[in-house]
Amino acid sequence: MPGVHVVVLAGGVGGARFLSGLRAVAGPQDQITAVINTGDDLTLHGLRICPDLDTVMYTLGEGIDTERGWGRAGETWTVKAELAAYDAEPGWFGLGDRDLATHLVRTRMLDAGFALSAVTAALCRRWQPGVDLLPMSDQRVETHVVVDTPEGTRALHFQEWWVRHRAELPAREFVQVGVADARPAAGVLEAIAGADVLLLAPSNPVVSIGTILGVPGLRAALRDSPAPVVGLSPIVGGAPVRGMADKCLPAIGVPTSAEGGGRHYGARREGGVLNGWLVHTGDGADVPGVRVQAVPLLMADAAATAAMAAAALVLAEDCRSDA
Amino acid sequence: MPGVHVVVLAGGVGGARFLSGLRAVAGPQDQITAVINTGDDLTLHGLRICPDLDTVMYTLGEGIDTERGWGRAGETWTVKAELAAYDAEPGWFGLGDRDLATHLVRTRMLDAGFALSAVTAALCRRWQPGVDLLPMSDQRVETHVVVDTPEGTRALHFQEWWVRHRAELPAREFVQVGVADARPAAGVLEAIAGADVLLLAPSNPVVSIGTILGVPGLRAALRDSPAPVVGLSPIVGGAPVRGMADKCLPAIGVPTSAEGGGRHYGARREGGVLNGWLVHTGDGADVPGVRVQAVPLLMADAAATAAMAAAALVLAEDCRSDA
Repeated sequence: MPGVHVVVLAGGVGGARFLSGLRAVAGPQDQITAVINTGDDLTLHGLRICPDLDTVMYTLGEGIDTERGWGRAGETWTVKAELAAYDAEPGWFGLGDRDLATHLVRTRMLDAGFALSAVTAALCRRWQPGVDLLPMSDQRVETHVVVDTPEGTRALHFQEWWVRHRAELPAREFVQVGVADARPAAGVLEAIAGADVLLLAPSNPVVSIGTILGVPGLRAALRDSPAPVVGLSPIVGGAPVRGMADKCLPAIGVPTSAEGGGRHYGARREGGVLNGWLVHTGDGADVPGVRVQAVPLLMADAAATAAMAAAALVLAEDCRSDA
Repeated sequence: MPGVHVVVLAGGVGGARFLSGLRAVAGPQDQITAVINTGDDLTLHGLRICPDLDTVMYTLGEGIDTERGWGRAGETWTVKAELAAYDAEPGWFGLGDRDLATHLVRTRMLDAGFALSAVTAALCRRWQPGVDLLPMSDQRVETHVVVDTPEGTRALHFQEWWVRHRAELPAREFVQVGVADARPAAGVLEAIAGADVLLLAPSNPVVSIGTILGVPGLRAALRDSPAPVVGLSPIVGGAPVRGMADKCLPAIGVPTSAEGGGRHYGARREGGVLNGWLVHTGDGADVPGVRVQAVPLLMADAAATAAMAAAALVLAEDCRSDA
């Protein structure tokens, strides 16, 4: 049988694990394209850093620190310590020595005029992730977080809010700086239009998947595609499996629940994006117009993650026959 | 007695050692200004690297690898190995992890519009070298080496010739790219004009001291200064003490000898720069119009290096009374 082309929208750690499960169940003829959030990207010490792209690339390329879920295995922190000795701020970002080489190559290529999608492809020649890794956009879109402080209302870069403040400052709003001028990266619209199955990874619905869907043209491409769209809930038992979606959903008025997440994405036939919504066993979710199914969603190990990916593909086939 | 202001023109390893000896014999009222060759500077992986400035800064700041004579003590090479894993050329340059933080801070400050002299001062706030460290110029001047290859005549960046080819390709000519538009860095002309003693460190007469003297206005400033100018021979017994001056002097038609070096600099009264020339014990040198003295010049240890610096200051005083 001919291969199936699966396109996945994904963020960092959760998205990377899900993609490794999907790759495990894919056949040799199948093709996986991952469209990755770049709203968390930032420039530090003159280096362009793409946390979600790198997490996915390192995870699928067997270079990830599996304990932390981000950054390189066997990482060292010499440069970071030296920068601190120069009082070079900021010190709160986890800039590892191994990781730094990736940023050097990326920054140099971007400075030379290559698009981020081309840079990502070049980096992937080393990592061989086994999926086509695409940034959501080749333009810069940065998620800023509006917070109240004793000094007044402030907008922080997402990473500063997430890493430095551990998402402890209540978010009032998330702003996608630069999004109005952004377009889907080279290859993204073509992948979505040609997909057999479209999946929303169990990533943060606000600052990962939400950021991707905010790129002009991307939501419409999803809705126009003939392929079924299935999302996987990152909320299990009323709390995020990992990350801090519970710090993000309240800011946009969405309950931190599998049902809340599903309703936030909404049924395709009612202006949303979903045909199917996969929730964790025991989580009820009533999402009007969307086929909801419950399976284990914990990604506890490779087998569980692969089973979850397989369940998403099955649900997609069920959704296809709905149409 | 009021302090003496000594201005030293210097290259990397030899210059750095000499400066540490000079600092050791200087009194608390004395001031040392080092004007450092930047013709070896290069940009690699998007990082601006100043080998001679860094060697002097690390040496005087107690951060140098004393075995190698360059780079940081306790250096690691993680980023270099990672860059190689990406096939990111060139791999021949010794880019250490600790060193790299210096280049990141420098590059970022240069990109922000600061002059190299201001960047150097900022880096020195950490290293506290105890001398005023100035680049020879705030403009880019790059030494290129013209060589014959089987494919024809080529010009290589000095570092490529020196590090990659270990100066084994015979040099036909040294070219200072950009020198016509260069000016002495902020503070250099003022330091020379106000100096009590001017010294040429026992650095390479061609690609270190020669490059500094090639900056428009610098040679004239030396000649116009009321201070005596004393040079120290880097050639001992017909061979360079360190480095590869014997690969450089032939290209400009100068014999590799203490006398050859002294005559190359020439007597101030005859259009050259020297009042005095310090050679190694046992090396004869007849340099017309220049007071020549022989003392041990091997910099074998801190005491020998300090004695050599003291001898240079004594010779300068002798030259002053000549006038």
